[in-house]
Amino acid sequence: MNIREEALKVHRENKGKIEIVSKVSVNNNKDLSLVYTPGVAEVCKEIANNQDGAYEYTNKSNMIAVVTDGSAVLGLGNIGPRAAMPVMEGKSILFKELAGVDAFPICLESQDIEDIIFSIKQIAPSFGGINLEDIAAPKCFEIERRLKEELDIPIFHDDQHGTAIVVLAAILNSLKIVDKSLASVKIVINGAGAAGISIARLLIRAGAKNIIICDRKGILNSEEYIINLSKKEIASMTNPEKLSGDLKRAILGSDIFIGVSGPNLLKSEDIRTMNKDAIVFAMANPIPEIDPIEARVGGARIVGTGRSDYPNQVNNVLAFPGIFRGALDARASDISQEMKLQAAYTIASLVDEDKLNEEKILPDVLDKKVAVEVGKAVAKIAIDTGISRL
Amino acid sequence: MNIREEALKVHRENKGKIEIVSKVSVNNNKDLSLVYTPGVAEVCKEIANNQDGAYEYTNKSNMIAVVTDGSAVLGLGNIGPRAAMPVMEGKSILFKELAGVDAFPICLESQDIEDIIFSIKQIAPSFGGINLEDIAAPKCFEIERRLKEELDIPIFHDDQHGTAIVVLAAILNSLKIVDKSLASVKIVINGAGAAGISIARLLIRAGAKNIIICDRKGILNSEEYIINLSKKEIASMTNPEKLSGDLKRAILGSDIFIGVSGPNLLKSEDIRTMNKDAIVFAMANPIPEIDPIEARVGGARIVGTGRSDYPNQVNNVLAFPGIFRGALDARASDISQEMKLQAAYTIASLVDEDKLNEEKILPDVLDKKVAVEVGKAVAKIAIDTGISRL
Repeated sequence: MNIREEALKVHRENKGKIEIVSKVSVNNNKDLSLVYTPGVAEVCKEIANNQDGAYEYTNKSNMIAVVTDGSAVLGLGNIGPRAAMPVMEGKSILFKELAGVDAFPICLESQDIEDIIFSIKQIAPSFGGINLEDIAAPKCFEIERRLKEELDIPIFHDDQHGTAIVVLAAILNSLKIVDKSLASVKIVINGAGAAGISIARLLIRAGAKNIIICDRKGILNSEEYIINLSKKEIASMTNPEKLSGDLKRAILGSDIFIGVSGPNLLKSEDIRTMNKDAIVFAMANPIPEIDPIEARVGGARIVGTGRSDYPNQVNNVLAFPGIFRGALDARASDISQEMKLQAAYTIASLVDEDKLNEEKILPDVLDKKVAVEVGKAVAKIAIDTGISRL
Repeated sequence: MNIREEALKVHRENKGKIEIVSKVSVNNNKDLSLVYTPGVAEVCKEIANNQDGAYEYTNKSNMIAVVTDGSAVLGLGNIGPRAAMPVMEGKSILFKELAGVDAFPICLESQDIEDIIFSIKQIAPSFGGINLEDIAAPKCFEIERRLKEELDIPIFHDDQHGTAIVVLAAILNSLKIVDKSLASVKIVINGAGAAGISIARLLIRAGAKNIIICDRKGILNSEEYIINLSKKEIASMTNPEKLSGDLKRAILGSDIFIGVSGPNLLKSEDIRTMNKDAIVFAMANPIPEIDPIEARVGGARIVGTGRSDYPNQVNNVLAFPGIFRGALDARASDISQEMKLQAAYTIASLVDEDKLNEEKILPDVLDKKVAVEVGKAVAKIAIDTGISRL
């Protein structure tokens, strides 16, 4: 059976991947009188008198929504909310299995910015946090920004920040191997969508000084006319040498290539124009920007992809469970850049220095220690920076 | 420990009552490749090509939302969405424990009709049905009517129909004991809110000919001016003798009293004005319209309440799990009056004739056979009446 048939089978046989289970027993009338009427009324009154009681007496403190409009699902594009559901359910079970976070998939009918913001605000009382997922750029930026302003629970667009956190962790460990510093390397990001822009922002925050970001038309340069606001903003923060030209021009003399774009865009000749000890993260799914073997032929010392069948899988499953574990544990009102940075540092630190090598720059994606440690670090920084509401 | 302390303890210790659990294993990279990327993409594509695939490959076929705005919670009134959560969670676990239906609590921020309708339509792709809960009358009527028109999944306002179904079942069995027929008895319903109006409608559908419905101001009479549209409509279907006056006038010479109103409205003298073998369902919670002992003193032969500590608990937990079990199993596009009638007949039939007596007119609320049998009957009638989409 091939992977398509196997995946369809496991989904069909289970009719989806999650179930709702009771945490309390309902075996007799006594139980019923406590978890339902009349006892439950006492719990309601307690929360009516103190709204924060929702965190003490209901699932809110450990429950997040995984929300999509189905407009940018995996590499499949705009397949709509119903077809997006299997991804949201998959994400939900990973939250639970890896971090003990209860996560419920919500697929929204409308793909309009205002409708999405409104709907999420409406359902927010049930949740302790919102994980936005597979929502197309550029609307994902506006949706996340507005929800962060208008809700008091943490909001996190995983396609942006989950990816950025894991890429930063991968870069930090790669730089240890090649003995270069983040402040000194020239980094090219191909793809100026949700992931590309968030990666650039987090790398800058972490100390990167020379990032060049390319979209389909080539290098973003703040001295040229850019119609898209999010691209215009990131252009002003990158490309200090004011380079113009195409992707090949960008990677000439660069140290790190980060692909969050599309399949087969580079060849080994292109990698050969990069600096010595080149680092290549070709993360387009399912087909990378360059085949890892070809990247090695071109001289890349460290190669990562988004795939599980090559070494160095750069997968945001290393980030999102622990991020929300920490945010919920600290009852954080936000997921800040400091928390994301701390998550990246923690992920990087979980590969022992003596085990670190060209084919092992990140922890295993299913290592349960990762979410535990990321959660602790994220909760601590939330408390230290004053955005915990405990 | 009293019930208040015990209820708070069980909620606090568990931090709510539900959890999200994976139905599939995620123990290794092979599992991950099937339930998450890259395998999950194949499932997404399958649904993108055939939207009904959501019922085959995701949780939609067994997942309902329990939705409230917190505007009319139990007898507590408008306590808002956060304080309503314990009831919605309680309902969710009863759906699962009694009928195997996965149910997720959604508490909406806004109490505006259009906001509620819009939000529910937005989240509908994730669900196979919507159970509306504790939404105040009269807006609950409009919300349910509009959602039934505008969505293709079953919609059910439990406060209306769950109560109506169980009351009808209780009446059918009571009438067997007192040897009267539904068509011949005079029935008084006190309370013209969500429950009262739905009870009247279902009783009429079942064959009742003489129903008198009272609100706080007295008997509803279609020859008098009624401003509230839902009351006006039910007035035109009830009170064939065009009686006017107060509740005491209404129950004079009646056979059945149904209270869905407030505490301590009747005394034994009032019950004495009813016909021989009077049936009294005093369902106001937590304090009934008349104390059961006082009703007996007044000559009532059968007395029921909403409470678990008296005989004959008229509780809609006998109805809602099986109703949704049947609607989901038949993939019904609606929950019709025929399905509700069938549910009531089935619940009544589950008390063996030889065990039926004045203190045993309904099955036990936690008897798991009830939801199974109601589910089968409801699914069958959905299929027979052509609203199944299987």
